[in-house]
Amino acid sequence: MGVKLSACAVYTIMIQMLRRLEEAHTRLKDIVNITPVMTSRSLDRITNNTCFLKCENFQRAGTFKFRGAYNALSQLSSEEKKRGAITHSSGNHAQALALAGSLLGIGITVVMPGNAPTIKVAATKGYGAKIVTCGSHPTDREKVAFSLVKKHGYAFIHPSDNLEVIAGAGTAAYELIKHVPKLDRILCPVGGGGLMAGTAIATTTLLPSAKIIGVEPKNADDAYQSFKSGHIIRAQNPNTIADGLRTSLGPNTFRIIREKVDQIVTVSEDEIVKAMRFIWERMKLVVEPSGAVSLAGLLSKQTDLQSKKTGVIISGGNVDLEDFFARIQKT
Amino acid sequence: MGVKLSACAVYTIMIQMLRRLEEAHTRLKDIVNITPVMTSRSLDRITNNTCFLKCENFQRAGTFKFRGAYNALSQLSSEEKKRGAITHSSGNHAQALALAGSLLGIGITVVMPGNAPTIKVAATKGYGAKIVTCGSHPTDREKVAFSLVKKHGYAFIHPSDNLEVIAGAGTAAYELIKHVPKLDRILCPVGGGGLMAGTAIATTTLLPSAKIIGVEPKNADDAYQSFKSGHIIRAQNPNTIADGLRTSLGPNTFRIIREKVDQIVTVSEDEIVKAMRFIWERMKLVVEPSGAVSLAGLLSKQTDLQSKKTGVIISGGNVDLEDFFARIQKT
Repeated sequence: MGVKLSACAVYTIMIQMLRRLEEAHTRLKDIVNITPVMTSRSLDRITNNTCFLKCENFQRAGTFKFRGAYNALSQLSSEEKKRGAITHSSGNHAQALALAGSLLGIGITVVMPGNAPTIKVAATKGYGAKIVTCGSHPTDREKVAFSLVKKHGYAFIHPSDNLEVIAGAGTAAYELIKHVPKLDRILCPVGGGGLMAGTAIATTTLLPSAKIIGVEPKNADDAYQSFKSGHIIRAQNPNTIADGLRTSLGPNTFRIIREKVDQIVTVSEDEIVKAMRFIWERMKLVVEPSGAVSLAGLLSKQTDLQSKKTGVIISGGNVDLEDFFARIQKT
Repeated sequence: MGVKLSACAVYTIMIQMLRRLEEAHTRLKDIVNITPVMTSRSLDRITNNTCFLKCENFQRAGTFKFRGAYNALSQLSSEEKKRGAITHSSGNHAQALALAGSLLGIGITVVMPGNAPTIKVAATKGYGAKIVTCGSHPTDREKVAFSLVKKHGYAFIHPSDNLEVIAGAGTAAYELIKHVPKLDRILCPVGGGGLMAGTAIATTTLLPSAKIIGVEPKNADDAYQSFKSGHIIRAQNPNTIADGLRTSLGPNTFRIIREKVDQIVTVSEDEIVKAMRFIWERMKLVVEPSGAVSLAGLLSKQTDLQSKKTGVIISGGNVDLEDFFARIQKT
């Protein structure tokens, strides 16, 4: 069975999701950072575009993830809020959910693999979340999380495939589209697909003429493969520096992306590092590798629009600078 | 003879300088980047202040220096413009003057010590300036520059002690004061004193109730010593990571700072690195060590104002990331 839906069904889903997204925007606008849109003369010259970078590295807890996490948590019933919420994540969703939980007074439990980076574990604990350690196989974390859901009645907040997480993530593109009129296209990184799906909903409904382009690391091109083949293909231990994009699409994100994204392009590890370097050195922004992937897609010149107004979603800025500062301190 | 001027003479100088500064603002407002003012909940919590960072790391050529360089060059006579301009600098002023010259069609020569960092030489050349190499002793560069002024009739644009450079530099604080109403104090790094003097002029005339605080590395505390003693004491081969602040005050910057700055505090190398790290990791901004010195002053808690609105001038973001990216690329 294919996943192609009738035009009418797709329209209904989109209208519903737009409503969720607009509600999310109203709910979040005084809670999230309305992140700045940055420009660069050098970037415009190099790309022969006018580029607008939506800088979610300036978001609370360092990435766009805070939008979806807060949006989802804030809609739990008072009973659910009392019982608490749980997720599995070794990275940005963990920190975002922990911060959102602390702001809303909701107890948060995060299942993390034992080999998760110390700095991320510390940041998540710093926001007051309880950490439960699991094995490093991708299915381990789900098993542990679901056993705790069963035992304690926690609400499970999926990092990307939850509709309220998608709607919250989409508020970044919503703000960008309201801030910069008449963009010709929007580029967005694809991992689990929450940000991409949210961006697609915002763009397709508010700016239907714009092209929606996903960018994914070549070394974790499961969304690209899924998009082409028409069914979800899961990433198998992908090896990419863009650690936020190693996850796979879920049923909800896949459906929205498949229907509404125009193109997914992939970029090499070298292209990701070069884009990241450009953003740091020329634009003076600290971004994480995943956060630079959308710009890498633009710089790779695989898309066909020249002399256009291009929106680029920079997803986050959580990067471990331990080594860098240790070296500086020694000099 | 002391340098203390009569109240009337000081008033006249300030009024003249404010006029220059307002003219500079009008001249520059469509040329410079009107840099953003960034805030941070964590920073406010830690300092018990409401902090507003004026981010000159986002300025053209990476630092506030572009403001003064463009302001000074644009006022040369057409004869002077034809002959070209010269400066000595191993750092940010060189790049700023080179870019301003390229925009104004003025040939720029920069005298640089032979041991200047390759990356800075390349950036200055990249903007089209001619580089003349000199010895590494501080007086060498002046000798070479003045011999070329004599030979070619170049206009000499001092990195900090030129009144139009000071007025241009002051437009950063001018923008900050217009953007954020009723600041209680402004912190600014002190090197050659151009930014400090310009900030003092803007603040003392537009916001007379605000306290003006200079911050200097302990290891290059010549301005602090000069401020205390009442005469210029020059830095002797200062050893600080804040390479933009190794220079000494000149007659103009000293006079303005001595009259109008309320306090100069000094910070250790460790405090500078810690402040820089905070800005990178928590605020996601790439700043150079000199650019973090003003925040280091605030974090050092040597100033007596609590629960106040504090403006912090972040002077620039030109830092060599070669090592960092080389390491990333290998992983």
